[in-house]
Order: sequence, then structure tokens, then C-alpha cells
Amino acid sequence: MSSVVRAVVWGANGMAGGEVLRILAGHPSIRVEGAVSRSRSGQPVWHTHPHLRGSFPELAFCSPEEGKATGADIAFLALPHGTSAPLIRECLDRGMKVADLSGDVRLRNPADYEQWYGSAPLFPELLDRAVYGLPELYRDKLKGADLASGVGCNASCSILGLYPLARAGLIGDVRIEVRVGSSEAGATPTTGSHHPFRSRALRVYEPFRHRHLAEILQELNLSEEGVTLTMTAVEMIRGVQMIAHVNLSRRVKEAELWKAYRSAYSGEPFVSLCPARPSHLRLPEPKLVAGSNQALTGFTLHEDGTRLVVVTAIDNLMKGAAGSAVQSANLLLGLDETAGLGMLPVYPA
Amino acid sequence: MSSVVRAVVWGANGMAGGEVLRILAGHPSIRVEGAVSRSRSGQPVWHTHPHLRGSFPELAFCSPEEGKATGADIAFLALPHGTSAPLIRECLDRGMKVADLSGDVRLRNPADYEQWYGSAPLFPELLDRAVYGLPELYRDKLKGADLASGVGCNASCSILGLYPLARAGLIGDVRIEVRVGSSEAGATPTTGSHHPFRSRALRVYEPFRHRHLAEILQELNLSEEGVTLTMTAVEMIRGVQMIAHVNLSRRVKEAELWKAYRSAYSGEPFVSLCPARPSHLRLPEPKLVAGSNQALTGFTLHEDGTRLVVVTAIDNLMKGAAGSAVQSANLLLGLDETAGLGMLPVYPA
Amino acid sequence: MSSVVRAVVWGANGMAGGEVLRILAGHPSIRVEGAVSRSRSGQPVWHTHPHLRGSFPELAFCSPEEGKATGADIAFLALPHGTSAPLIRECLDRGMKVADLSGDVRLRNPADYEQWYGSAPLFPELLDRAVYGLPELYRDKLKGADLASGVGCNASCSILGLYPLARAGLIGDVRIEVRVGSSEAGATPTTGSHHPFRSRALRVYEPFRHRHLAEILQELNLSEEGVTLTMTAVEMIRGVQMIAHVNLSRRVKEAELWKAYRSAYSGEPFVSLCPARPSHLRLPEPKLVAGSNQALTGFTLHEDGTRLVVVTAIDNLMKGAAGSAVQSANLLLGLDETAGLGMLPVYPA
Amino acid sequence: MSSVVRAVVWGANGMAGGEVLRILAGHPSIRVEGAVSRSRSGQPVWHTHPHLRGSFPELAFCSPEEGKATGADIAFLALPHGTSAPLIRECLDRGMKVADLSGDVRLRNPADYEQWYGSAPLFPELLDRAVYGLPELYRDKLKGADLASGVGCNASCSILGLYPLARAGLIGDVRIEVRVGSSEAGATPTTGSHHPFRSRALRVYEPFRHRHLAEILQELNLSEEGVTLTMTAVEMIRGVQMIAHVNLSRRVKEAELWKAYRSAYSGEPFVSLCPARPSHLRLPEPKLVAGSNQALTGFTLHEDGTRLVVVTAIDNLMKGAAGSAVQSANLLLGLDETAGLGMLPVYPA
Repeated sequence: MSSVVRAVVWGANGMAGGEVLRILAGHPSIRVEGAVSRSRSGQPVWHTHPHLRGSFPELAFCSPEEGKATGADIAFLALPHGTSAPLIRECLDRGMKVADLSGDVRLRNPADYEQWYGSAPLFPELLDRAVYGLPELYRDKLKGADLASGVGCNASCSILGLYPLARAGLIGDVRIEVRVGSSEAGATPTTGSHHPFRSRALRVYEPFRHRHLAEILQELNLSEEGVTLTMTAVEMIRGVQMIAHVNLSRRVKEAELWKAYRSAYSGEPFVSLCPARPSHLRLPEPKLVAGSNQALTGFTLHEDGTRLVVVTAIDNLMKGAAGSAVQSANLLLGLDETAGLGMLPVYPA
Repeated sequence: MSSVVRAVVWGANGMAGGEVLRILAGHPSIRVEGAVSRSRSGQPVWHTHPHLRGSFPELAFCSPEEGKATGADIAFLALPHGTSAPLIRECLDRGMKVADLSGDVRLRNPADYEQWYGSAPLFPELLDRAVYGLPELYRDKLKGADLASGVGCNASCSILGLYPLARAGLIGDVRIEVRVGSSEAGATPTTGSHHPFRSRALRVYEPFRHRHLAEILQELNLSEEGVTLTMTAVEMIRGVQMIAHVNLSRRVKEAELWKAYRSAYSGEPFVSLCPARPSHLRLPEPKLVAGSNQALTGFTLHEDGTRLVVVTAIDNLMKGAAGSAVQSANLLLGLDETAGLGMLPVYPA
Repeated sequence: MSSVVRAVVWGANGMAGGEVLRILAGHPSIRVEGAVSRSRSGQPVWHTHPHLRGSFPELAFCSPEEGKATGADIAFLALPHGTSAPLIRECLDRGMKVADLSGDVRLRNPADYEQWYGSAPLFPELLDRAVYGLPELYRDKLKGADLASGVGCNASCSILGLYPLARAGLIGDVRIEVRVGSSEAGATPTTGSHHPFRSRALRVYEPFRHRHLAEILQELNLSEEGVTLTMTAVEMIRGVQMIAHVNLSRRVKEAELWKAYRSAYSGEPFVSLCPARPSHLRLPEPKLVAGSNQALTGFTLHEDGTRLVVVTAIDNLMKGAAGSAVQSANLLLGLDETAGLGMLPVYPA
Repeated sequence: MSSVVRAVVWGANGMAGGEVLRILAGHPSIRVEGAVSRSRSGQPVWHTHPHLRGSFPELAFCSPEEGKATGADIAFLALPHGTSAPLIRECLDRGMKVADLSGDVRLRNPADYEQWYGSAPLFPELLDRAVYGLPELYRDKLKGADLASGVGCNASCSILGLYPLARAGLIGDVRIEVRVGSSEAGATPTTGSHHPFRSRALRVYEPFRHRHLAEILQELNLSEEGVTLTMTAVEMIRGVQMIAHVNLSRRVKEAELWKAYRSAYSGEPFVSLCPARPSHLRLPEPKLVAGSNQALTGFTLHEDGTRLVVVTAIDNLMKGAAGSAVQSANLLLGLDETAGLGMLPVYPA
């Protein structure tokens, strides 16, 4: 790798694409060469992302063709599901590395893809080639790879919260609840995102089978019989919070859980275990990580030793999307994994 | 009038139309015969207004043709500006009374209409025939009329706050600021109403010449040289707050202002003057009137006796739209002016 | 009963006490004779509840002694837990009826009280005498009684949502999640209610054993082995939402559930079952009932026939506190059960 | 200066003190040696500022005595007004540099101090010695100084917005309106900050003479006859927005205003002028600068050439307090003025 890596961002006008740009604006060794937006090609980037005017005063969105012509070293693809795969293939063929943010190559098994996304994958070989873009689980594989998949924001939050339990074989069954902010739905206005209806919403949807469940089952190696995933849209812009109601596979003592979590995440730069005390900080909320790439997890064990509540909080645009993508890209590129991702949470906000 | 008045509501799928329905659901002597929505004709009303399911379990939106065929006694027209006037004429021709909520017949002078709305009025004779739908100013005229105009929510808030001063000739010049909630923009999602952008917004727009200024000038009998109107979208769903920075035409003592306000609003069922004390209740906020037809006004005079701050708060969907429309309709129909409008503010909320 | 019932409200300066006053302000046959607040005795009620200035322009808080001297027919006691019981006894001894809002007489079994409240009940005989103040379960008993207990807002929301299942013996085990607005914590400022920390909070607390669980177990006749209750403070002022993850005691078809819910709530004035369609209205949110006494319940059955999600939404200050108290009082007094409680939800807000 | 500067933060448990810590956590050449809090001495800092747990895992609050014993090179004093001055003197006497955040040394004229703060300054010589801590106005003076005053968040926002006009002699009179988030009031809960009352508030207070007006008059060299300052608490945690209604001292063309603003702020690292187009970005809102040290200013001139609206937005905890303090400290210490302050706005949030 040369000392400066050149990047192009696809879907740069969207919510996740904008967050990739925000991160790269402060990245010490990646330079943005192109910001692709078919619909806004030619417009200054800051018309869409006004907070980036100081960082990219001259950058304009370019067309896909111009994006391809940049000859960048890495492509960040923040595109709608279904439209990313063809471009992934093209970028790889051109010798670029790819950090995808879509759902197109998250699932490894083509049959799973077909079940959850409703059609066979266009390029099944990419499913094999992609490494799931969560460095906490796939750090070593990402280092040698050229394609990191996207992670679902709900999925990554849930996986990070439950992985230590799954690894220890402790999950009997689990009811996962995820609370999401409005930025999760992207930048396109809908009736559901219309402020009079969305503000102070507590809208429960997908009470059992959100698409992100597929990733959770895959990464935690669980079967659908024991896992449900329910979503609630809450008043918040950024943030995902998972609360998991776990029935453990066997009675445990609390110390065993601490050990499982500590051993899973020892040394992780962006994953922290909440303290047992003070008690009001034991179960985390997204306010505490807003704007940062951090994930916080806490848990409380019922005195019966078998019922467990696990809570995990992330910023959906960061650790749940653009942050994990840049972290994965750093690994793909042989850079310091934490480069560009040192921003602290903005609190209170 | 028969003992029960039959009403039809046009634009019933919109934000103001829904609020007319909410009021009429509890009105003792008006019965909803039809809820017109061209785009949703045939759908249950409660699909759009779920809070009204208990009140109108069987009511479906009807087509404009069906609306006309109801033979209702009064039509509430909550339609986009420009589309109301032809229907007003048709309803009047059929012998119905009309409470309009649009801007189509608010201005009396066709030249004013053309200046502010950009084209000549389609039916200039209606401008003459309409009585401005603010009973606090036109109670007696409304009683004998068959057409009440709509009131702009920003305009009605500003007019109610400044009318006593204008009547007393005390306004030298005035900078009117209006802060509005998101329901003001209606039920159609836009980028501006998209929750991630609209939540916690403090978006200043129309820094001098919002269209509602025309009504304010007309009703306060002021000229544009001395009046500006600035809008700010704030985090709130319902509510308009006006804060007016008035330079008085002459030095006054506070007692004179109290007298001007008291004499203007003595006996008004829905307009209250805030108390001088306790001081934290002297200048009102929309929270205090949410869900009700009430208007609150308070003021503070600078010790120099010439600079004045006036603050007025209303619920934009109620006193600023549907509430004033029903209040005006009650007068048109010879009913008790306050019928159906007794709901108390929901506080805190 | 004489044609007008005279009421006194204790704890009238608090959040629930204020809501009792808001309801009684529009009640056709109950008149407020006294609003007791030891700390604010002598102050105008509207200094504390500014939205009630028009309703009670002259009413001042009175001392407990003055409250007792009113000779009212009914007392509403909105007092902190532990301080209500002695006053209940005194009021009953004076021949008044009592609608309590505290937790002091909610549990029937003194041993349960001691377990959950940490000390033996002061007046155990009152536990027997009180009827749990949820008319949907105890309508007939309330009619002949002189003491209605308060209901926990989280408990009443949960009980209303799960009662039809419990009655049908369908609950195997259940994880109850409750999401609450900030008004639930009352009118006293704390660090937890401080806006910079409370705004957009998603604070999970009491992950298993909130005190309201005791009521839920009692009223649903369940044992603690199978039930947990977790609370989350969310961004909202009014509102409680319960989401229950139920493992049914046996495989069912959806039709059986509809039947269980319909038969439990047929004819209930304030409890509604959400429709199966449109799907976005199937699981309710508190926005839809704000300011009203309504409870909404919806459910979705997993295709496996054994896993069920039930969601219930109420306004915590209304159906979860003051609304149920007035509804119960209407029954105690032989009045129309719905008197004073006809306010529609204010939506969107 | 040695390569690493050692700092101690007083009032470290407060809102502004916490923000100083957040900035210093990422500062390349300042190290936190002590975080003083009399009331929380001995407690881990992250119990109060949980978002800083990763940055300061071991740091505990220390007592004032321990703070003084650190022998730090610079003290940041985030203390209540009135308590800072004695400590400033003591720190200076010990040879430390001081970046104050209080109001104790903002005003240069002891008579002004007495007028606005109600008592004579304890150490009038400090008023002379302090440089007003706004580098945009006092960069050169700060470089050679040992004491930077605090800046009022409302004042700094207003001064930055109006300074170019004042410098050009263009302000005839001006009505300044400031909208503030809840973090401005600090970390201590009050009835006014209680979430049910503060959420969605639009509370107008200090309609003419907020204390920050004194700083504005001083720095813009204006007299009180022509300036009023009105505050409104709005729904927001971080952020100050000023909207100034200026009557210009003479008729101007828009180009003259652009020139005045550009020449005043050319090369400023943290002050930007909003673009004329697109129009929706012309007048800034605090959302656009949240979490950053940036100030944005925009304006619109009335077609009459004499009436002007100026809008400025900052993050009150950053540019309005801790950010300007660190920026000033960098100058006092001879460091790169922008060190530690490069965080980009978190948007949307």
C-alpha cells in the first residue's frame, strides 16, 4: 500500500454514505477520490451533507462512470440491497478492494440468501469470497481479504451483545428486541419518517422475523426455533439498542458470564463491557456512544441463574454501518484498524 | 336550522381535515355525513386517522361526487390553496354554508391576493362575500354570513397577539417571529419533514415575507414598511408561538397595555391574557394549550416604555385551523359558538 | 347520591393529582371542593397547573385540615406510597368514599405487601376492603364498594394486555417489557429526569422485578417463576407501552386468540382491540391514545403457534392513573362509568 | 513549554467541565493531571461522565487541595460565577496559566461588572489582566497572556454573528433573540429542567436584559439603548442559535455585507459564513455544528436595504464554552490554536 490510499464512495448521497465521508474526512491515510451519486451527479457534496462543507469544500458528486474511472484502491459501497453485488464484482475485477455496506454479501449460504431476501443471489461466488465485516469476529480473515460484507445495524448490535454467550454455548432460547432511531431508515422521506408521525413513535414492527435475523443466526450459529427478533422505532435519530431476554441453556453463576464476556472482548478497541456498578450504568443506552464507533454491552442475571437480560448499544451509522465498514477496510488495507475512528461520544446530546 | 346539522368535510385525509373530524366527533349538534378524499375514497377514515376509530368506526372516505350528494348543511373545506375556491362557489350555489380552511378567500382585496399568491383570484366575488374566520374580530359578521374564510395558523396567532395594540394605534413597527411545529406543513412527507432532519431543527426560513404576512397586514391595518415576519421550524408537532418585537408608536405605561388587552378580549371564550405573575407564566408557550382551542397572550414592556415583547401561543391545528373553523361554523349556523370546543389542554405532553 | 357529588383531591400538586383535576374540570356531576397540598397550601392551583387556569380560576390549594373539613363525598388520594393508608382510613371513617391512586391498598395479601413494599401494611384490613381499581376486571365489585385501590400504570397496562390470555390459561411464561414516559416519575426533578440526561434516553432498569410485578401476578393469577418485568425509560412525556413476549401454554390458532380477547373486552368503553389490518396499526403505540382514557391492545402470533407478542398502549396519567381512578369513582358513586372521560386522543402530538 | 502540557480542570463534574475533559482526552499535547470536584472527590470521573470511561479509566475526581498540588501548567476553571475569581488569583500566583469559563472576568470595566452582576468584583485587577476568551477577536492578545476569560455561550454566539457589522459601524439598533438547549443550564436538576416540563418547551425569558448582554455590548462597542436580548429555551440539548433583527445604520447593498463578513473571518479555523445558495442552507441551525467547535453565520437582507436578519449557530458546550476555552488555552500556551478541536459535527443527530 502506498502511504495514502485512494477511496471512492458509492451511494455517497445516502445516510450511511455520508457517514463514510464524515469518517474519511478525518482519516489519516485514506483520501476520498470520488463520491458517487447517480441522482446528484455534479452537485456539491455539501449541498447534501452540509456538515462536511469544511471538509470537502470542492468535492462534487460524480457519476458511476466517473467513480469507476478514479482508479481508487478501495470502494465503499453504500447502496440499496440488490444493487451492490454487480458493482462489487466489477470493482474486484478492476483490482480494487471493497468494503460493502449492503446486505448483498452478508449471508454465506445461497439458500439462506434466497430464503431471507426472496430471490437467489446474483453472484453466489461473492458470498463465499466476502468476509463478514465485523472485525471483532473476523479480524484475521479480514486482514488477508479483498471484500468485507456490510453488517446490519440491528444484527451487529445483537451479534456483539450475544456472541460471548453463543460461543460459550449458553443460549437456550432468546427473544431479541431492538430499538432503532430514525436514521436507520435512510435519507428518503416516507409517511413513516414524517415528523408528526415519527416523533415520539413507539412503533413495534417485524415482531418475529426481521431480515437481520438471518445474520444473527448465521454468526451466532443458532437456529430459528430458539430466536425471535422484534423491532421498535423509538424517538432518536442515531442509535440502536438491543435488549435480549435470554433463557440460558443451563444454570450459571454471574462470574461465569463476566468471564465469557471478558475473554471474548479483551483488547477490543471498540467494544466495552459495562461495569457492574454503579447500577445505573450497568445496562447501556445509545446516548452514551453517539457519534462514536463504540459498542457497549451490559447484562443482569436473574437470581434464578437461568434468566438473563443483555443490553447492547451502538450508533447505527457508526459501529452499525460506516464505522464497521471503515474498520474492516483498515484491515483489508493493512492499516491500523482504529485509524480514523477515534472520535469520542458526544454526550450529553 | 334543524336540531342536528349535517356536515361534509373536504380534504378529510389531511392534517387539518383530520382535526375537523376530531372536533366534530364530539360536537353536540353537528353530524359528519361525509369525509371527502379523492385519493383515499373507499378506505376507512380510521386507516388514516387511527385515533378516530372509536368515533367513526364505519365511516369511509368518499369521492367528491359523493360528498356533494350528501346534501349537507355545511361544508368544511380543508383543501390546498388554489383548489378551494371553485368548490366554495359550488357549495354556496347548492345552498350550503361553507367554513373554508384554505388561503383562497382570506384576503379581501383582489390586488393583495394577486401580489401574495402570484395570480389573480379565480372568483373575486368570493373575497367580498367571505368573512375572515376569526370570531374574535368578526363575530357579528359571521353570525349572518354563509362563508367563513380560513385563517393562517401563523397569521391568526400573530393577529390575536397584536390586535389590541393595533386597535389602539400603538404599533410603530414590529418584527414578528413565529415558531412552528411540524404538523403545520401537513401530512405529506418531504425532505424537510424527514425525521432525521426535522427532529430538533431550528430552521429559519422566510426571513421577511411569509405569505401569512398579507393577512396580518390586512387584519391589523398595517403597512408592509413597518412589519416583518420570520419563521422558525422548531422541535414540536403541534403549536405556534409568536414573539413580536414591537417598537411602540409612543411611550406608554404598562397599565395602558393591560387595559388595551383586557378591553379587546373581555369575555372571549378562547383568548386569555397571561398573568403578570408568577413571572415564569407571563409569556406563554404552546405546551400550555396543546389539544385545545385556546390562545394565550402575554407581554413585557421594556423600562424605556417604548420597546415591547408580545408572545402568543396556540395549537396550530386547533385555534390556528380547525378550531377556528368550527368556531366560525358555529356562528354561521347560529349554534353556541363554543359547541364542541371545550377540550382542555393536555399538559404536560 | 345528590345530583352533584363533591370531591376533594389530595396530592393535588402532583402529576397524577393534576390529571385528576383536569378530568374533574369537565366532569358533569363531580365538583371539586378542595385541592390539598401541604407544601403549596394557599397558592392558586393554576400556579402549579397553568393549563387549568381557565377551569379553576379561583381555586387555591388547601391544607390537609381544610381538605378534611370540606365534608366532600369522595376523596381522590394521589399521595406517595406509604402515606395514603392512614388517610384512607380516616376518610372512610368520616363516611367518604375513596378512590386511591397510591400503591398502599393494591395488594390483597398482607404477605405480598410486605414482600414487595418491604414492611407490613399499616392497616391490613384496608387491603381486604379495597377493590382493585380496574373496572375492566372489577366492575361489579366496584359498584357496591367504598374504596377503590390505585393501579400501577405499568401494571394496568400489562394486566389489560394479558388478562384475556391469563383467563384462558394460555400463558406458559412471559417476558414483559414496559416503555415509559417521563411523567411517570412524577413532578419532582431528579438527575434522572434532568432534560439533558432524560431526553432521548433508552434507560433500561429494574430488569426483572419492578414493584408493579406484584400487581400483575395478583391480577393475572400467575407465579413469579414464569414472569419477568423489565422497564425502559424512553423519550416521551405521557404514555406506557407494554410489549409481552409470551410462550403460550399450548399451540393455538390465531382465531382462538381473537376470541379470547373479544370475549374479555366486548362492550368495554375504554379498551379496544387493534385490527389485524392494516398491519401498521396492528400493534399500538401510546401516541394513539395521548390525553385519553383509552387502552389499545394488539398481538401477533408466530407461525409456530406458540410464541406470541402482545402490545398494549395507554396514557399513563389517564388509564394508568387518574382516568382509571375517576372511572372507578364513577362506579363507587353510582354514576355513569364513562362520565368525564370522553376526551378523544390528541393525534398527532 | 515542555512537549506535554499538564492541565487541571476545576468544576470537572459539571457540564462545561465534562466537555473540557472530552476535548482534552483527544488533545495531542495537553494531559489531564487533575479533575477537581469538591462534592465528588474520590469518585471515578466516569461515574459522572460515562462517555469518558474509555478515555480516563483510572481518573478520579480530586479535592481542590489535590488540584492545587498537581503543579499543573494550566488550569481550566469551570466554576459557578463568583467562585472563580479567588482561584484565578491563586493559580496565577502559583505561576499557572488560566483559562476561565465563568463570568468572573469577562467584563473589563468594574462598574459594568457591578451593574450586571450586582456586586463589586472581588479582584478588580483581574478584569484588566484577563483577555476575553474569543480568539476570533483577541488572538494576538491571547498569545502573550496568562489569563483568558470565559465567554458566555449566548454572548459568544451573538458576538460572532454581529461583530463584522459592528466593526463596520452598520448596526443602528438590534433585537437579538437567542434559542438555547437544555445543557446550557448545567448539570443540576431543577423544575425548569424537569423533562415533562422542559421537553418541547418554548419558554421565553429575560425578554430584554439577560446578563450576557453586558458582554455583547462590551465586545461590539454598542450601548444599551439600541440592543435587546431575548432568550427562548427550546427542545434541544446542545446548541445556541442567535437570530438578530438588525436595523442598519444606513442603506446597504448585499455585496457590502458579504465583504464585511468575509474580511472579518477570512482564515478563521472555526468560523464559517453560510453560502447564499442553496437557500435552505443560508441561515444556519445548531444541528449542523453539534459536537464541534464550529460557528456558522448567515444573513438575509431585506429588499429595502436597511432591515437585516443575521443567524448564527454554535454548540454551546463547545464554541460557547469548553471549545473556546481550549482554543484560548492553546494560544496562551503557544500551541497550535486548533489542537484537539478538529472534531467534525455529528449530523444528523
